[in-house]
Parts: sequence; structure tokens; C-alpha cells
Amino acid sequence: MLVGLGLDYGDISLRALKSIKNADFIYFEKYTSTISDKYIQFLKDEVGHDIVQINRSDLEEKSSALVKKAVNSIVALLVPGDPLVATTHHILIESAYKAGVAVEVYHSSSILSAAIGESGLDIYKFGPTTTIPFWKDNYKPISFIDTINKNVVNGNHTMVLMDYDQSTGATVQLSEAIERLLFSEKERGYKIFNERRIMAMFDIGKPTCSITMASTAELLDVYAKAVKRGMLTIIVPGKMSFAEEELSSRFLQDVRK
Amino acid sequence: MLVGLGLDYGDISLRALKSIKNADFIYFEKYTSTISDKYIQFLKDEVGHDIVQINRSDLEEKSSALVKKAVNSIVALLVPGDPLVATTHHILIESAYKAGVAVEVYHSSSILSAAIGESGLDIYKFGPTTTIPFWKDNYKPISFIDTINKNVVNGNHTMVLMDYDQSTGATVQLSEAIERLLFSEKERGYKIFNERRIMAMFDIGKPTCSITMASTAELLDVYAKAVKRGMLTIIVPGKMSFAEEELSSRFLQDVRK
Repeated sequence: MLVGLGLDYGDISLRALKSIKNADFIYFEKYTSTISDKYIQFLKDEVGHDIVQINRSDLEEKSSALVKKAVNSIVALLVPGDPLVATTHHILIESAYKAGVAVEVYHSSSILSAAIGESGLDIYKFGPTTTIPFWKDNYKPISFIDTINKNVVNGNHTMVLMDYDQSTGATVQLSEAIERLLFSEKERGYKIFNERRIMAMFDIGKPTCSITMASTAELLDVYAKAVKRGMLTIIVPGKMSFAEEELSSRFLQDVRK
Repeated sequence: MLVGLGLDYGDISLRALKSIKNADFIYFEKYTSTISDKYIQFLKDEVGHDIVQINRSDLEEKSSALVKKAVNSIVALLVPGDPLVATTHHILIESAYKAGVAVEVYHSSSILSAAIGESGLDIYKFGPTTTIPFWKDNYKPISFIDTINKNVVNGNHTMVLMDYDQSTGATVQLSEAIERLLFSEKERGYKIFNERRIMAMFDIGKPTCSITMASTAELLDVYAKAVKRGMLTIIVPGKMSFAEEELSSRFLQDVRK
């Protein structure tokens, strides 16, 4: 079974917790997002046996081993957020399907719907999502800006996720994200940001959640020297309706704090 | 507090259940989707006091009454799926914010990420979502087909939700949905369906979940006379990559059953 752990400690569903108590082997992965040690410890205590971390390469290379195990026993894989958004989980299901192993999926809260919901923006106006990747000295992909520009031209909003490095726990920070947005915009000759207010959303789905809507210059000014503020998601609004302006206006407040 | 009940019985998170046990008043609404009586009864038993249904007009017209109550007591509103995707919840938060009442939001599983996940299609290729509405004799809106066509032209996928009527529990059935898709396509002169396989997804997030990928003609043939198969979500794929073809190929099986 594939079990979503959601966005924060305790986001696992009652139904999923009940099911993993019957599992013979329980694994967890955290290569798309973080899961706190406290959360895993809590689950270990609840199910009464060990929960073993499995990394991405193991999942991808040893998926057949996992599936073989699942032929004669109940195997649970716990994942951050909502399962199946990552391709790796589909490859697992595909292997299981071919081996005649049924896979139950327990959904949970996801950054996708949570961030759209918290933003106050119209769900019907979100174009394709994109991700700002890590940059290396000799590798600085900027195709995310094409997605954003196309959405803006169509009047649509863009959810912009940040790359996450499982091995170090590092993720793209706000100042880096804005620098890359502005650099890529200039590189392509687009006119997106300037005065446009964007939403910087930290720790969506957690009690520490905060959202600030401001221009890129204001955000850099306010947050450039701030300490790390948790997992970042950015929304670049396209054309906002009056209702959307109203519902998101409370996120303008933060800037003046 | 706003609490998501998710897609099925028992989808509420542990964290949310713990919190509503401290609430003085608990309400639930089911005007965007269904919640079973069994689920509400289970929650009543868990929290040890009553949970009262509140309808949409009450929520919208009496939101200030609800907010006033929340000034001096803990009020919980339980909602299907993930909260905040419906505008009404934002209006509540807005009222609460103005009255100085903090609102905690407990996210849960949502049709948005669950359907994208289950489909095996690339999350980065979903354009704007749309809804097929109920049709009346003198009111047959077809603008949903413009959204689908634009996405198809851009190579993007479209998630198509079905309208839901709280008062009767009725929702748009597969045969109606396909008739409206084909009628609207013809009306606008688009070329979308013909041989294109679309995904008919029933009861996403529930143990009864099933997905069939087939042409509109095949779907009509297979399901036209079938009994009601639960909540429907349709995905109209745009241009599929080889990996997407592979990962979704198992949904072709159903048709031959």
C-alpha cells in the first residue's frame, strides 16, 4: 500500500493509520519533501514496530524486490504529501500490477490543493505548475519562466514549487528563487514581474504557515536577510478578478510588519 | 477552525480529529461533495457530542453569526475534501480575520491532487481545470469546452469536474457528461474527441475507485446503460509522452472486461 503522510505532523488519515497497523513491513521515503523524525517516531509508537527509511535509488532500482516482498506479505510505503504525484510511485504500482499485487492508495493533504486553497485565487484559473530547480555553476535551466510567462499571457496563475535535495535537506530559498525568476525573465525578454505582486507562501499546511503578497523588489527587501522560513511555494498570479483581489488582500499586510 | 474530511470515510487527519475534540460547536457542510452519514456518525461518537449540518445559504448569509460565535468559543466547520477550494470558506476566513478571530485550517485529501496522481499523467502538464454544469431546458452553458480545447491545443491535460447538487445529491453522470462534451465540441467547431482516449475516473480516493481510458464512443458503449458508478471525474489528456502512455496503459484494460 502507498500511504500519504500529508503536509505536517499528524496529517496521516485515520483510515491509513488503521491499515498500516496490519502491515508486515513499513518503509518511508522523503525525497520529495521533508518528514520530521518526530512524525516517524510517533508512527513507530502507534504501529508498534520499526519503520525503515528507503531512498530514491533503492526505490527505483529495487522496486522489484519490494514488489516481490508484497506478493506474500503486506508492505506499506509512507510518503510525504499525497502519493502518486511522483513518477516513482507509479513505477512501483506498474511493477505491482504486472506481478498481480493489488496496491491500495491512501491519499492525504497535498501542496497542490492546499496552496491553491490558501491563496484565495480561483482554482479554475491555474495553468500548468512548474518548479525552480537548483542551479549549478555550469547548469542553469530556466524553462520554468516559459511556463510562467505563458500562464501570465493567458491570464492564468502559476504555482511555482521549489526543488528539494533529499540528501542535504536543502531547498531553494526565497532570495534565490526571486533572483532566478528575474534573471530568467531578463534572459528571455519577458515582461512579467516589475510591479506584479507575487505570493511567497511558507510552510503551507503547517501551523507555522505564512503568506506574503508583494512585488519581487519588496519581497527581496523584506526577506533577503531573513533566516530560513521553511518550505517555500510561490504563486505568480495572472489577471486577478475583483473577488480574487479581495480574498487575497489580507496577504498584503505582512509586508508592513 | 476549518477541517477537511477528505475523499472518503476516515480520511480526516489524526491532527484534525484531536483538534475538533476541543471544539465547543461543530458543524458540517456537504454542498460541494458528499459525506456519508456513517462518517458523520463515527465523528460524533469520537468527539462525544453533536455535529450539526449547515447548508450553503446559511454559511453565506449567517457567516457573521458563525464568526461571532467563534469570538468566545471554539467553532469547527467540517467540509468534504480539502477546505478553501470553495470560495465560501474564504468569505468565512475573511469575516473571521476582520473580527480578529484566528482560523486554523486542517488540510485533507483532495480530488485535485488525488485525480492527477491516480491518472499517471505529468502534473506539470495540467492546464486549467473546468466543470461540466447541470443543464436546464433553457440554460445550457458550454464554456467548459473552451477550456478543454485551449488545453488540448497547448498539449496540456484537463481535469473535468462534475457539477453537484447538494439538495438532491445528484451529479452529472458519465453518459450526460460525454453527450455534453460532444455537443459542445460540435457547437464550437472544435476537433477534440474523435479517436482521443479520455479517462473516466469513478470514486477517486475511495476503495471503490476505478479508472477507464477509452474513446468517448467506447465509453458510451460500455457505460451508457450501466448503473450509477459513484462520483465521476474526467481527464481529457493533451499530448501524452511515452512515459505517460506507459503509466496510464493499465487503464485501457477495463474496457475489455
